[in-house]
Amino acid sequence: MTVSLEDVKQAAERIAGRVRRTPVIEVAPGLTFKLELLQHTGSFKPRGAFNRLLTAKDSGELTGQGIVAASGGNHALAAAYAARELGVPARIFVPETTPAAKLGKLRTLDADIVQVGSEYAEAYQAALAARDESDALLVHAYDQPEVVAGQGTVGLELLEQAGMFDTVLVAVGGGGLIAGIATAIGDNAQVVSVEPALAPTLQRALEAGEPTDGAVGGVAADSLGARRIGSLAFEAAQTYGVRPVLVDDEAIVAARNELWRQYHLATEHGGATAYAALLSGAYRPAAGERVAVVICGANTDPATLI
Amino acid sequence: MTVSLEDVKQAAERIAGRVRRTPVIEVAPGLTFKLELLQHTGSFKPRGAFNRLLTAKDSGELTGQGIVAASGGNHALAAAYAARELGVPARIFVPETTPAAKLGKLRTLDADIVQVGSEYAEAYQAALAARDESDALLVHAYDQPEVVAGQGTVGLELLEQAGMFDTVLVAVGGGGLIAGIATAIGDNAQVVSVEPALAPTLQRALEAGEPTDGAVGGVAADSLGARRIGSLAFEAAQTYGVRPVLVDDEAIVAARNELWRQYHLATEHGGATAYAALLSGAYRPAAGERVAVVICGANTDPATLI
Ligand SMILES: Cc1ncc(COP(=O)(O)O)c(C=O)c1O
Ligand SMILES: Cc1ncc(COP(=O)(O)O)c(C=O)c1O
Repeated sequence: MTVSLEDVKQAAERIAGRVRRTPVIEVAPGLTFKLELLQHTGSFKPRGAFNRLLTAKDSGELTGQGIVAASGGNHALAAAYAARELGVPARIFVPETTPAAKLGKLRTLDADIVQVGSEYAEAYQAALAARDESDALLVHAYDQPEVVAGQGTVGLELLEQAGMFDTVLVAVGGGGLIAGIATAIGDNAQVVSVEPALAPTLQRALEAGEPTDGAVGGVAADSLGARRIGSLAFEAAQTYGVRPVLVDDEAIVAARNELWRQYHLATEHGGATAYAALLSGAYRPAAGERVAVVICGANTDPATLI
Repeated sequence: MTVSLEDVKQAAERIAGRVRRTPVIEVAPGLTFKLELLQHTGSFKPRGAFNRLLTAKDSGELTGQGIVAASGGNHALAAAYAARELGVPARIFVPETTPAAKLGKLRTLDADIVQVGSEYAEAYQAALAARDESDALLVHAYDQPEVVAGQGTVGLELLEQAGMFDTVLVAVGGGGLIAGIATAIGDNAQVVSVEPALAPTLQRALEAGEPTDGAVGGVAADSLGARRIGSLAFEAAQTYGVRPVLVDDEAIVAARNELWRQYHLATEHGGATAYAALLSGAYRPAAGERVAVVICGANTDPATLI
């Protein structure tokens, strides 16, 4: 069940016209941002959702029963958006902790919304149960090949747009984004995973030699708060030699404020986490190293930007 | 004292490395945004300011006395930023009405700030007086050839980045931006000026056959609130056949909210004004017409985004 570069390329063709090709900006010499926060619904998640839904549509797995999905918020928005675009119903499970900025947008997307539990893992159990009682298609937030291949299209675009870069910094929750990007980028650049110190799923798995459960918390938990890294992400991280880095909440908050003040980008904490590694010095590029940072989420309460 | 395409090209060379090359995004088929709100200081204004300062530096006009500038806010930020980057002092005159979002940023830029009067025109008179008492260089907010040529680099980039487009929508205050863009674009596309109905400087001048004074007001007055169109802009608008459009405040507010909700862009009212023409139907593209919109300003209180 590995995902290949070819899968990512096919995903790019499949979802073309459904997702925005988000731009890059070189904000300083050798520092490029991939502005994936400008994607439909405010995160990269529609790439994976569309790839999963369109693949299932072709194979006949997507029926009038529609889809079920569980999410801390952004995958919920993406799955509901993709389902609405394709004209199928969506049943979406989110924890009670999903921020108002995400829940409010979700309410505009015609989905059937169920709030359950206090973290993603609980919403996921409820989604599984709902799927088992129906013929609806489960659209996983990160650990399905079609989802990983869809997220990987961020990496394909980056290779086309950013010219040469040595390193790309990517935030990790369940790992769908980084798995896809690592697959797309292969040995063209070093992929660095950035995780909150309070939810270090990938780093813990790499140390343990296998995915393990752990507590989740911190300011970015609504987007990066998976208990355990996805199996596809763990595999991709090993295959492509992803280098893990942790950042504390203070660094994430500082990065979010800096993205707003210096770069005029309104990001959520998860969307600022990759940049936090650079700003805090948790990741220190060598002299002349060209770094790309994926700015991956916009769904925030703007009143909290300072 | 006309500005030529060659002047704009020279400006692009002169300011390269000082300003960001801002990206474009095709948000829907045939609709492209130029994301100039991601420029240093949050608007296009550093392009003109750097071109003015660097030209004066070469000619010896820029001395240790530094610069003076008057502005509703964004040109103040740009002039102060450019002066700081080039290591000269800046004395900046802004009206008392300059919003806190702009004044707060201005205070971080080491300029000597003077608040005077209730609109741009009064701050400008004070700046002229200060210039006359010193050897400081006046950096005009819009009506100097170097400033117009600098702003025109937005248009050069758009031609390079956006592929073919038929029309470009540009917000107008004193007209430096549109004069530069029209000069850069020439007959490659139709340039449409968009102005608040409460501050219609260019449209009024085109009707009168010459620039005339008028009252200024409305939600975008801090960025588009010049009393009279600049002479360079008036000339460029005639030469290049700029087509004037007006939008009311309601349309500007709606466009700003839509830019936030659908496109995840935090803009100030002046930065959303060009898009307001499209969203409100004040400008209606023909079937198949490819439209570019310059999103030109980010300096806003994020708490007011809804
Ligand atoms: C903004 C943002 N960034 C990063 C991630 C992490 O993505 P993944 O779970 O694929 O690692 C998420 C997941 O929800 C997200 O919403
Ligand atoms: C955000 C923004 N847009 C547009 C303008 C208008 O520019 P000009 O005065 O060159 O017409 C300004 C001027 O301050 C501005 O700040």
